[in-house]
Amino acid sequence: MSEHIVSSYDRDLEALGRRIAEMGGIAEKMLGEAMDALANFDTELAHRVVATDTRLDALQREIEESAILTIARRQPLAVDLRECIAAMRIAADLERVGDLAKSIAKRTVKILAEARVPRAIIGLKTMAEVASLQLKDVLDAYAQRDVERAKAVWANDVELDALEDSVFRDLLTFMMEDPRNISFCTHLLFCSKNIERIGDHTTNVAETIVYLVTGESMPTERPKGGRPATPSDDTKEQTP
Amino acid sequence: MSEHIVSSYDRDLEALGRRIAEMGGIAEKMLGEAMDALANFDTELAHRVVATDTRLDALQREIEESAILTIARRQPLAVDLRECIAAMRIAADLERVGDLAKSIAKRTVKILAEARVPRAIIGLKTMAEVASLQLKDVLDAYAQRDVERAKAVWANDVELDALEDSVFRDLLTFMMEDPRNISFCTHLLFCSKNIERIGDHTTNVAETIVYLVTGESMPTERPKGGRPATPSDDTKEQTP
Repeated sequence: MSEHIVSSYDRDLEALGRRIAEMGGIAEKMLGEAMDALANFDTELAHRVVATDTRLDALQREIEESAILTIARRQPLAVDLRECIAAMRIAADLERVGDLAKSIAKRTVKILAEARVPRAIIGLKTMAEVASLQLKDVLDAYAQRDVERAKAVWANDVELDALEDSVFRDLLTFMMEDPRNISFCTHLLFCSKNIERIGDHTTNVAETIVYLVTGESMPTERPKGGRPATPSDDTKEQTP
Repeated sequence: MSEHIVSSYDRDLEALGRRIAEMGGIAEKMLGEAMDALANFDTELAHRVVATDTRLDALQREIEESAILTIARRQPLAVDLRECIAAMRIAADLERVGDLAKSIAKRTVKILAEARVPRAIIGLKTMAEVASLQLKDVLDAYAQRDVERAKAVWANDVELDALEDSVFRDLLTFMMEDPRNISFCTHLLFCSKNIERIGDHTTNVAETIVYLVTGESMPTERPKGGRPATPSDDTKEQTP
């Protein structure tokens, strides 16, 4: 391969990395703002979050196209091929994080008319903070190709699962205490599931980083801390 | 390109198509069996559904690897390139359908200890039947590269969304009638969301078929039948 080709290949990869960093930043911001909108019943902010999602979709499309073009043009092998595949997989996960943040933002509008249970939102906020830190960590791990950090994020997902169990029980309690809480708390149940799934996509990214750097796949089952079946087992999204 | 290369390329595509058909068959069966398990409190069947999911994951991995190898080796253009991309996208959607069916199956175990509300399951069964028909239709549309049929599936997703709204309202009513119904109905709420999301993945496949055959993307927003924001708006998963 001539130096000219090598360097333009490196430029391809750099461009992919930049776009993924941009996607990560947008997804993180969407999650934070969606939670702010929900907690403050701020429908204007909620609409802004929803509008932001189109940028994330466009970036994913661009990353997929660029990665495939790079594979077809340069026929990369081993780690270079994995770079392209990893970029596509991570972009798909970050796009889903944005979708999930968007759906939390949409709940803001739906809960406006309901009897409010402000204490029910506290647990959700803690969940969102943990999910946001995990997302930030995994994006740093990707930028630095840091396998150990990626594995730490992966292992740490149990914390989010445990928090969801706790939020689930609290919400059920609020509903049983007063039927007027049922509608509001049902919306929050879906939000808590959305945050837990953001955690799943974050661990998918962690798995992709391990694959990218080592060529190996993580075990197919994530640690569950020996918990019995709970709501958070719902839709574990394992990276294939 | 020599005839030898052309025919081995065709063989690559045929192998991809066969694997996707296999995935589709498994995903359809998983959904049907997961609903049977749920409706009949059949934990043994539920466990079988959960176990089947590993085959689906393995097939997705194989399809992704084969498609990328084909892109790297044969550098296909236009529709041939789209065949490979479409195979990867459809495999990812079918893998998610399996995950969602699996999570319905898992609810079977969780609801065993709850006070049962059999009439609450009726609406879910209707939803699952519609979702199953849609899935079958879209797989046929893929096998025949039938754009019109794919578009019909895409448009028909509104029916599933409307059914979910109705199921959501019914479940809320059951919960408000008697707090002892809350836990059981909450699990069914998640099941109904899972079925609705299976519908989203089915429409993603429909969009991929249109892209594959025409090279064009569908509009980014699906028809919603002019409904106000409802639970089923939760996590629309648009194909990027």
